[in-house]
Amino acid sequence: MKDLINKIKTDGIALNEDVLKVDSFLNHQIDPVLMKNIGDEFAKHFKDLNITKVFTIESSGIAPALMTSLKLNIPLVVLKKQLPNTLIDGYYSVPVKSFTKNSIYNLTLSKKYISKDDNILIIDDFLAYGEATLGVINIIKEAHANIAGIGIVIEKSFQPGRKKLDSLGYNVYSLARIASMSKNKINFIKEEWFYKSFFFYSFHT
Amino acid sequence: MKDLINKIKTDGIALNEDVLKVDSFLNHQIDPVLMKNIGDEFAKHFKDLNITKVFTIESSGIAPALMTSLKLNIPLVVLKKQLPNTLIDGYYSVPVKSFTKNSIYNLTLSKKYISKDDNILIIDDFLAYGEATLGVINIIKEAHANIAGIGIVIEKSFQPGRKKLDSLGYNVYSLARIASMSKNKINFIKEEWFYKSFFFYSFHT
Repeated sequence: MKDLINKIKTDGIALNEDVLKVDSFLNHQIDPVLMKNIGDEFAKHFKDLNITKVFTIESSGIAPALMTSLKLNIPLVVLKKQLPNTLIDGYYSVPVKSFTKNSIYNLTLSKKYISKDDNILIIDDFLAYGEATLGVINIIKEAHANIAGIGIVIEKSFQPGRKKLDSLGYNVYSLARIASMSKNKINFIKEEWFYKSFFFYSFHT
Repeated sequence: MKDLINKIKTDGIALNEDVLKVDSFLNHQIDPVLMKNIGDEFAKHFKDLNITKVFTIESSGIAPALMTSLKLNIPLVVLKKQLPNTLIDGYYSVPVKSFTKNSIYNLTLSKKYISKDDNILIIDDFLAYGEATLGVINIIKEAHANIAGIGIVIEKSFQPGRKKLDSLGYNVYSLARIASMSKNKINFIKEEWFYKSFFFYSFHT
């Protein structure tokens, strides 16, 4: 997705080979117009799959997932990392290892917000080791609902998450795929949108 | 705000005199169309104040705040409850007591996302004791920026937060104000929007 990749190039900071700082537009400060464009792009890509709900994880997944659910006109469900004190009904919970924070949290979902008839689109801001996404997948499978697809804003393709999801047969769509990083350098896998727009522009001028 | 109050009446659950459960549309499952209407309403109310940024707290404030920032076409800044591991630059941090969770967390903001020239609209999902909002206010004051207004989705007017903010002279706009609650009963302070719409409807039919 061209404007996302441009934003990562201009405002993203590769701290080292593993850590990409995008807190100026994706998770600490948020660019709402970029979020809307991201939501529109996910909605367009997954529009024919009869999706009933968008699922994400608090808190950085909420902005892109909300814009996707608005465009698809379906509810958004935010899986919690802490058990809410108002969650008095039954719930699903799975432990998830966070490699970036070197800790384990319990991903939690009220049983009220999922049924076996749901056809779910998972949206998240990052795909790295895939542990958080696999946690969401495990909860959805426990509820016997279907996973229609997985939309990722930024995929660190050099970490094992994408391969894990591909090998399990999931329909994954990542808007920006990073092949490798080093301090202050970010290499993208393939910039389809940039080239598409470039050829379109060349053809029409 | 009429559709919000209707939603609280139909889908909100008063567990007791203190706790209102709105996790079916505001914080666990989220109604994106309602969030858009909430954002439009806040943007309309505060539109003439030359606001430069919307501030909120993760994670339940993000959805209404994102929609407000999108409508105002300005950045959203999400204050963190945990220090992000990519936050390597200078930051502001204040301790906030959570009465609902009976715990203390450190509200954190990178110094990069605030300047003394900012004119800030604070948006949050709930106003109860006001501790979280006062935490945001303290950080903004520490950065010598201005607080243009405070938009609250649901105000529990029987708890002391609103009085604290009023006594400090802030411009507070709450979309639903709850006068009192008891098990399965919610009493609203004043349903301006409902009556406005009602009179409008009566006049035009």
